[in-house]
Amino acid sequence: MKTFGFCAILLSAVCSAANPVAAPLKVNGQRIGEHLKSLSEYGKNPEGGVSRVAYTAADKAGREYVLSLMRDAGLTVSIDVAGNLVGTRAGTDPALKPIIVGSHIDSVPQGGNYDGDVGSLGAIEVAQTLNEHGARLRHPLQVIIFQNEEGGLFGSSAIGRGIDATRLNLVSQSGKTVRDGIQFLGGDPNRIEEAKRQPGSIRAYLELHIEQGAVLEQQHTQIGIVEGIVGILDSEVTVEGFANHAGTTPMDQRHDALLSAARFVDKFNSIVTSVPGRQVGTMGWIKAEPGAYNVIPGRVRMGLELRDLDPSKIKALFDRSLEAADEIGRLNGTTFHFSSQDVSAPALTDKSLQGIIAATAKQLNFSTKLMPSGAGHDAQEMAHIGPIGMIFIPSVGGISHSPKEFSHPADIENGANVLLGTLARLEIATDP
Amino acid sequence: MKTFGFCAILLSAVCSAANPVAAPLKVNGQRIGEHLKSLSEYGKNPEGGVSRVAYTAADKAGREYVLSLMRDAGLTVSIDVAGNLVGTRAGTDPALKPIIVGSHIDSVPQGGNYDGDVGSLGAIEVAQTLNEHGARLRHPLQVIIFQNEEGGLFGSSAIGRGIDATRLNLVSQSGKTVRDGIQFLGGDPNRIEEAKRQPGSIRAYLELHIEQGAVLEQQHTQIGIVEGIVGILDSEVTVEGFANHAGTTPMDQRHDALLSAARFVDKFNSIVTSVPGRQVGTMGWIKAEPGAYNVIPGRVRMGLELRDLDPSKIKALFDRSLEAADEIGRLNGTTFHFSSQDVSAPALTDKSLQGIIAATAKQLNFSTKLMPSGAGHDAQEMAHIGPIGMIFIPSVGGISHSPKEFSHPADIENGANVLLGTLARLEIATDP
Repeated sequence: MKTFGFCAILLSAVCSAANPVAAPLKVNGQRIGEHLKSLSEYGKNPEGGVSRVAYTAADKAGREYVLSLMRDAGLTVSIDVAGNLVGTRAGTDPALKPIIVGSHIDSVPQGGNYDGDVGSLGAIEVAQTLNEHGARLRHPLQVIIFQNEEGGLFGSSAIGRGIDATRLNLVSQSGKTVRDGIQFLGGDPNRIEEAKRQPGSIRAYLELHIEQGAVLEQQHTQIGIVEGIVGILDSEVTVEGFANHAGTTPMDQRHDALLSAARFVDKFNSIVTSVPGRQVGTMGWIKAEPGAYNVIPGRVRMGLELRDLDPSKIKALFDRSLEAADEIGRLNGTTFHFSSQDVSAPALTDKSLQGIIAATAKQLNFSTKLMPSGAGHDAQEMAHIGPIGMIFIPSVGGISHSPKEFSHPADIENGANVLLGTLARLEIATDP
Repeated sequence: MKTFGFCAILLSAVCSAANPVAAPLKVNGQRIGEHLKSLSEYGKNPEGGVSRVAYTAADKAGREYVLSLMRDAGLTVSIDVAGNLVGTRAGTDPALKPIIVGSHIDSVPQGGNYDGDVGSLGAIEVAQTLNEHGARLRHPLQVIIFQNEEGGLFGSSAIGRGIDATRLNLVSQSGKTVRDGIQFLGGDPNRIEEAKRQPGSIRAYLELHIEQGAVLEQQHTQIGIVEGIVGILDSEVTVEGFANHAGTTPMDQRHDALLSAARFVDKFNSIVTSVPGRQVGTMGWIKAEPGAYNVIPGRVRMGLELRDLDPSKIKALFDRSLEAADEIGRLNGTTFHFSSQDVSAPALTDKSLQGIIAATAKQLNFSTKLMPSGAGHDAQEMAHIGPIGMIFIPSVGGISHSPKEFSHPADIENGANVLLGTLARLEIATDP
């Protein structure tokens, strides 16, 4: 009866106990496309793509638009103390733990319109579809749009394991500290610990996302079922040399921080590619000080990142990089310092959720592939408080974090339908 | 009689026709020190040194202070259309061409308090000394504090050879265009061509400056007599790659602009140091876009500079750098572009002025050395309109463009006395 009860509520006449998800509800793909287009206006760059960096005016304006969509979807909305947008749709059994679906809408500088946006608007579309059909889950449904995913998963981290004062005081890409950014978005950083939820307090967290790689496209696969999210090590590298006049200081008397930094960037690439595997290593940003044609750089700061499913491999590559830096610094009297490393451990998805996603996709006749995620996601933070599942759709050319990021409307619609169908199956398949 | 006439005016009783510069006037070294200290407050950095970058509020405030010193020195002051501070002391013969002494007070970001300041305040001190003794030169004396020397000799360039619209529209370190910067300082960029002076229109240009290298200090020499200023080639290097997600893009599918840039920085250093000589080559600034831990840099821009007394050597080194860039770019599918090069030709100082400076220093019992200037100076622009001479004093440790820049008060006083004495000798030695 439980199964039928849910089925009757959600799928009304087309559903039976024998074949409970026979002709499931479908999302409105065209509407997702329209919402994606409207959202793309917030932080739009003249040359294409979007710069909706967390805590900027564009971010705030985009969130207000998304909040209006959540209201239109019949969700009861609020902003939690961490600055996340939270929309709730009551379930038929208020005693049950919530199922959470969500993603983020902040972007990297000069990013695209699919990373985060597809999962955010897909989740809202799922809620709207339920609402339009008067369908109600047994569990409470929460749609969460997490703040500042790109800068370090801050919104989901606040919920999953908490944010301490050190992380609140970090300066984000926007120039604001995380603390000030949360305040700016309507959260309350002084009560940040209230955002944290207890392990075991949610039924499941599900996230739809673009792959951001080229595997699904190259293999002509419609749906990726994520088996785990790689671990990430970020470290700020500082090279200290000595600033001096570029015209009067002989070449052999220089302590050029940029020269050392450059040699390190090259060497780091060699180290990362020296062993087999899928690990990646990136130097993504660099700043030389003081920074003028006629001054030898006295200090360079730059960002180092390593990713792999195996934490011990990350550590080994990082240790080799430290040794290489020492050697490079000795060559011209500069010194390297590596900031305490911000490490996120690999996060595995829940096996049973993998199975439910696979069954849903199969019913919808979509080809699937089990795969790791090379990118970090809010899901990995949510893994601290309950089982997680992730659904990937193809990224054209594997391009992401770029204005050229693109996913086909049909793939986005497919992904949202898998998300909706997964909710239905999850209700049917399991007890609270 | 002419000689004696000047001598009587300038040096009164202590001077005779037989030995016209026997007991010359002396500057007040302590006062220069006090003025240097006061000027250092404008744009002072908490951690030491100064950031009085041209066209910033600190630059403007510093100039107002210097303008007050010029007034106190009895100079008739004005701001020319190029934004230079001009102070005039009438000569006894209004028909004669002016002698100009000057330098600049703008600094590089995180610079020191001696580069430019010593020559500027030294020139004002010379005028004040003349004023206090009621001494008048035959030629009109002009003290000019040039605007934006560090950003590209803009103030002196406007006088020496003119600034065209292209250069007016360049964006300076302050963020303002040169055009807006000139307006900000009280000049009139729409009438910039009126700042230009005709070749042959000045008797001489003399500049006192710190060496900014370590030669004088290492050789225990008090006064450097500059034989020429090296030529400088500046070019903005752009590396175009492809921005993509740092987690999902395999290492062998990247077009990492920063990796190529780093390889070029290292290679450029090898090229510059591969041939004997005193040439220098510097990559002084770098910017990676979009610039985040989790994005492979799609574009890098950086500043290349080459200096030497021989223009053909500069060209040969630059040509080899272009070839190296092509090869580096091919390795990972990135492309290099070098902006049209801003080249300043070497400028030789006037032989007879060298001799007058040497004679003056000898009379004052200072050790001297004939030497090239590795740094660019306003003097090289003034060379377009008349004979130039430059006086160097030692820089401790050869450090410049750094908060640690320092010259001993005694050396500064010596330099200013050589400048004053050179004016006296110049009046006596020559006809207009």
